[in-house]
Amino acid sequence: MKKISIIGSTGSIGKNSLEVISNNPGKFSVFSLAAKNNVEELINQANCFKPKQVVIYDEAKKAELIKRLKSCEILCGSDGLVKAVTHPEIEQVLLALTGAEGLSPLIAAIRAGKNIALANKEPLVMAGEIIRKLVGEHGVQLIPIDSEHSGIFQCLDGRSSSRVSRIFLTASGGPFLNRNSETFDRITPDEAVQHPRWNMGKKISVDSATLMNKGLEVIEASALFGIGLDQIEVLIHPEAVVHSIVEFEDGSQIAQMSVTDMQLPIQYALSYPKRFKSDKYRLDLSKVGALNFQRVDTQKFPCLALAYRAGRMAGTAPCVLNAANEVCVESFLKGEILFTDIPRSIEAVLASHSSVKHPNLDEIFKADVWARNRTNELIHMKVSV
Amino acid sequence: MKKISIIGSTGSIGKNSLEVISNNPGKFSVFSLAAKNNVEELINQANCFKPKQVVIYDEAKKAELIKRLKSCEILCGSDGLVKAVTHPEIEQVLLALTGAEGLSPLIAAIRAGKNIALANKEPLVMAGEIIRKLVGEHGVQLIPIDSEHSGIFQCLDGRSSSRVSRIFLTASGGPFLNRNSETFDRITPDEAVQHPRWNMGKKISVDSATLMNKGLEVIEASALFGIGLDQIEVLIHPEAVVHSIVEFEDGSQIAQMSVTDMQLPIQYALSYPKRFKSDKYRLDLSKVGALNFQRVDTQKFPCLALAYRAGRMAGTAPCVLNAANEVCVESFLKGEILFTDIPRSIEAVLASHSSVKHPNLDEIFKADVWARNRTNELIHMKVSV
Repeated sequence: MKKISIIGSTGSIGKNSLEVISNNPGKFSVFSLAAKNNVEELINQANCFKPKQVVIYDEAKKAELIKRLKSCEILCGSDGLVKAVTHPEIEQVLLALTGAEGLSPLIAAIRAGKNIALANKEPLVMAGEIIRKLVGEHGVQLIPIDSEHSGIFQCLDGRSSSRVSRIFLTASGGPFLNRNSETFDRITPDEAVQHPRWNMGKKISVDSATLMNKGLEVIEASALFGIGLDQIEVLIHPEAVVHSIVEFEDGSQIAQMSVTDMQLPIQYALSYPKRFKSDKYRLDLSKVGALNFQRVDTQKFPCLALAYRAGRMAGTAPCVLNAANEVCVESFLKGEILFTDIPRSIEAVLASHSSVKHPNLDEIFKADVWARNRTNELIHMKVSV
Repeated sequence: MKKISIIGSTGSIGKNSLEVISNNPGKFSVFSLAAKNNVEELINQANCFKPKQVVIYDEAKKAELIKRLKSCEILCGSDGLVKAVTHPEIEQVLLALTGAEGLSPLIAAIRAGKNIALANKEPLVMAGEIIRKLVGEHGVQLIPIDSEHSGIFQCLDGRSSSRVSRIFLTASGGPFLNRNSETFDRITPDEAVQHPRWNMGKKISVDSATLMNKGLEVIEASALFGIGLDQIEVLIHPEAVVHSIVEFEDGSQIAQMSVTDMQLPIQYALSYPKRFKSDKYRLDLSKVGALNFQRVDTQKFPCLALAYRAGRMAGTAPCVLNAANEVCVESFLKGEILFTDIPRSIEAVLASHSSVKHPNLDEIFKADVWARNRTNELIHMKVSV
């Protein structure tokens, strides 16, 4: 049985990972579970999966866990996360945090030589160059869980990306694909979190609505597969059946397709290099009927163009893009700013940033803090940017 | 420069192969050219590509070739074909004959240890078991040129087919996909050879119109990749962008897509395991817009069901199916029988055949001759079968 650490176990990916583990009895044992602050769910999971370690990021909740979970080690904070990914017995880490918080545990896991199933895209956006280098030095496997990147990984199947001419990431287009952009300033948080295809957390749902999610994925793909940003294109594909396409240098394209169930890429990342036999995820294209593809209107969805811009600026710019986006989305969800303020604010923050080339981790963390402060300033000054 | 033998050089695949060779200067030299009876075209090709050997299958035309082509060895008949695929200097054979005639040169080429780019599907339909065994024994590469099988080959990319749960071959549906089947008995040869997507020879165009072509491809795929017939499904896909789909045992599907240009799979078969860089075959899905998929109506296209039936009977039955189909198509093209007589006659021939299990080559050739005679009898008796 492979010993696994699930970081972010109470989120959408975390819960689905535990379901995958339940659906494949005898194949995995859960060594660590880590969550941000959802104590009840974490206790339920611990009672069910009997991990050796349980981590609650929020230190204030440690005492309660200690009282209610007797049979395992209780850890907290960033130190706890690092322990939960580096323990010598752990064979694979599944990293499913949201946002920049995943960067430190990811780096700790790589340095500890752990193979990683990665759902958390922000670390690769922030520090792609550093992570790629570390992965090479430590010879670990970094297997993406995001359906698009899992798709690319499956299409490449160990082949070098040097033979690739283009990669296409598909995007369902989110809930506002066909909404008149003149009404975008009236989009409510409730409307923005209703994703037509995937049931996900709020942050990533808003990112899908602005297409920033796809922008982050473009930067992530560039870092993961060592492919230039200008070789990566986005195609709107509302049915979300084709997850990504790899075009080889002769023009032939290989696409990965499946039902829209995030358990499939999770299972693949856990079973890799094997695949588990399953009849659960049968795709019937004749029932889907038609697969539609169109280009992205970046006038309507400026966040995608901003991501390309930050990616081309390189250095600390993608980190700044990501931090500004996190602050903006949180603010939008609280009703502090309009949907259309998200790209406006990010653009203003990016414009006022001097990117540091080939940054080290310190410079990345500094840029992250700077961008969060700068974005908050902009939002609270209520400057029309 | 790889020394290549092009068998069937004046047909549609043969001409396209020579174009691929011209488009990739310095990579290939043509060692042999072989054609059935088109002397003029063969002479033009020989003057252009300067082969060492030229073969004309029709012995009556040998004298003319000898008179007009001074600089190369002129061969004829079946013996000539065998020499043109077995000469020690030949590094790869491209086999692009139509029909059963390809079987003997294919077997000769395998026995001579040649790697083969195979466009000729009938030999695999007739003698799949024998060919698969010989390929294993002689350790040669058999790389399909048919776009669907090239697609499967690319999706598998060296992976074992034991991890495959299903294979989907796509079919454009041919010219009569949306025609009322009650009018099928009035289909003329001219209508039947107008394929909506590919410009091909007459025989294969009629096969595409009846969907027998897809039926033969199903049997071919089963033989090439060692996959059971019941794991192979056909999907109607009028845009002919997705050529085939491999579903792995976890439910994830990998598809191969490209523009509908037969030069691409030809080039792939010649360049394998490399790919040649080219901007010629760029596929833009956003311009295609929609990819449509539907099940096949086998009431309307009974030839596909007949192919599955013959494939399941195994032994000499697929050979009989193929022979009966060849005779019927020729007869239909001459105006002797109706379009709807093609499946009717094949069904009657199959029904009166006692399949020989695990036949040797002699038994296969015997079954081929028997089926041709039987089909001709049926047609000329004008029996309403």
